[in-house]
Amino acid sequence: MTPTIGVFDSGFGGLTVLRALIQRLPQARFAFLGDTARLPYGSKSRRTIARYAVQSAQFLVREQGAEFLVIACNTASALALDAIQDAVPVPVLGVIEPGAEAARAASRTGDVLVIATDATVQSHAYAAACRAHGLRAIEKACPLLVPLVEEGWTDHPVTAEVLRIYLDELTAEAAFEGLKPDTLVLGCTHYPLLRPLLEGVIASAVPSGMTVIDSAEAVAEAAVRLFCPQQAAALSPAAQLRFFATDSVEKFERLGSRFLERPVGNVELVDLGG
Amino acid sequence: MTPTIGVFDSGFGGLTVLRALIQRLPQARFAFLGDTARLPYGSKSRRTIARYAVQSAQFLVREQGAEFLVIACNTASALALDAIQDAVPVPVLGVIEPGAEAARAASRTGDVLVIATDATVQSHAYAAACRAHGLRAIEKACPLLVPLVEEGWTDHPVTAEVLRIYLDELTAEAAFEGLKPDTLVLGCTHYPLLRPLLEGVIASAVPSGMTVIDSAEAVAEAAVRLFCPQQAAALSPAAQLRFFATDSVEKFERLGSRFLERPVGNVELVDLGG
Repeated sequence: MTPTIGVFDSGFGGLTVLRALIQRLPQARFAFLGDTARLPYGSKSRRTIARYAVQSAQFLVREQGAEFLVIACNTASALALDAIQDAVPVPVLGVIEPGAEAARAASRTGDVLVIATDATVQSHAYAAACRAHGLRAIEKACPLLVPLVEEGWTDHPVTAEVLRIYLDELTAEAAFEGLKPDTLVLGCTHYPLLRPLLEGVIASAVPSGMTVIDSAEAVAEAAVRLFCPQQAAALSPAAQLRFFATDSVEKFERLGSRFLERPVGNVELVDLGG
Repeated sequence: MTPTIGVFDSGFGGLTVLRALIQRLPQARFAFLGDTARLPYGSKSRRTIARYAVQSAQFLVREQGAEFLVIACNTASALALDAIQDAVPVPVLGVIEPGAEAARAASRTGDVLVIATDATVQSHAYAAACRAHGLRAIEKACPLLVPLVEEGWTDHPVTAEVLRIYLDELTAEAAFEGLKPDTLVLGCTHYPLLRPLLEGVIASAVPSGMTVIDSAEAVAEAAVRLFCPQQAAALSPAAQLRFFATDSVEKFERLGSRFLERPVGNVELVDLGG
């Protein structure tokens, strides 16, 4: 039987990770769960995020038979990866460590900037993962970026201005700390939709440029390395996708296609309690 | 015994309603619950919002002895007022009807604009309440405003630009429908913090001006009318405030003081399940 890869996010952003996974494993079977009734995780506490994420992971493993889990949510990866690994009997991959590895491969100065949600930044999970790879990281919470993406303003002058303000504050802080950053990690799965705009802002604001690391791409690469050797033989002839959400399936279908870059159909509603 | 007024919101915004209530009933006893573990309600479905709001209302009535409930959340008022009224044996006041009454009192043309969250607008609860008062209303979802307030950008050029864009779209739609609006209802309890900026934008963009209706003030007026005649005799010598939240009490204390315009201390964590 074809093994199932479970992909979990608090909302729609993790579909950028699913998209990167489908590109690399076009014949795998995927079950994606968006815990949309309880999003966003980014503004909540560790205890609450861990409780929600464990329930979601258990649904994918127990009810959907996932044999491998990708936590396609930076906040849940930062705050609940250990709790999820303890709660399910399958391999679990988060997005932080692959992002830090990709930053190490990209950076020449060893100094890295990270933009993410409030909860991810407060956890300092990226700083810790970067430090383990010999990198110095400055992190910044950018709470307006997710709402701007969800409003569809991914190519809007207001969004460019907000990005410029956040990046100015971040680079000023890095300079104050004596860092010479050459790499920017997108520590939230919504941010890849801002990549074209962000590269324009960087080109006009940062003379020497900056390499942008998309953690969605980084985690998909890591998942293929971990998952493929054992499982590639059992891949089915065509990709199989199932989508689950804990709230409005209509909204999931409507917004989700922007992140997945293909239509998201037949989303199934699930009740995780609460 | 002094009766308790229960005040409920999904988050912090309802503290603008509590502030307006304390101004009018400085000697009452209040219990405020912010369901911060599950916020924001504004992007969720009716079914989910009703479930969360009923659990929250039951906590205030059963565990805190509230004898009167104010639903200081436009989304919950729009989508769950009936469900809450069915679930608890005390009078329940929402924010929509008082907002519509205040608009009727203010408007000369009978044409009204409403700005609110996605879920409030999709419910068309303001349009229905306005229609019942003989008003015509055009509603617009403004999903960026809550994050801008929570980022603390209440006096920021980006926020002014976002307000200008939203108001331009709204007045263009009103003109297309043949309406001559002279009143703008703030259909979200976060928006009163934007009132100074909003009045500047209106002054520069709308030649004839516009009356701004703050639904927090409107619901406090209505609560005093409903609550006071029976209960005023039992008021205690000084206001008594208790605060409850379903997630991080530190964040509640930190952000809440902006909305309440006084320090919020001793927030108690409660678990409503989920």
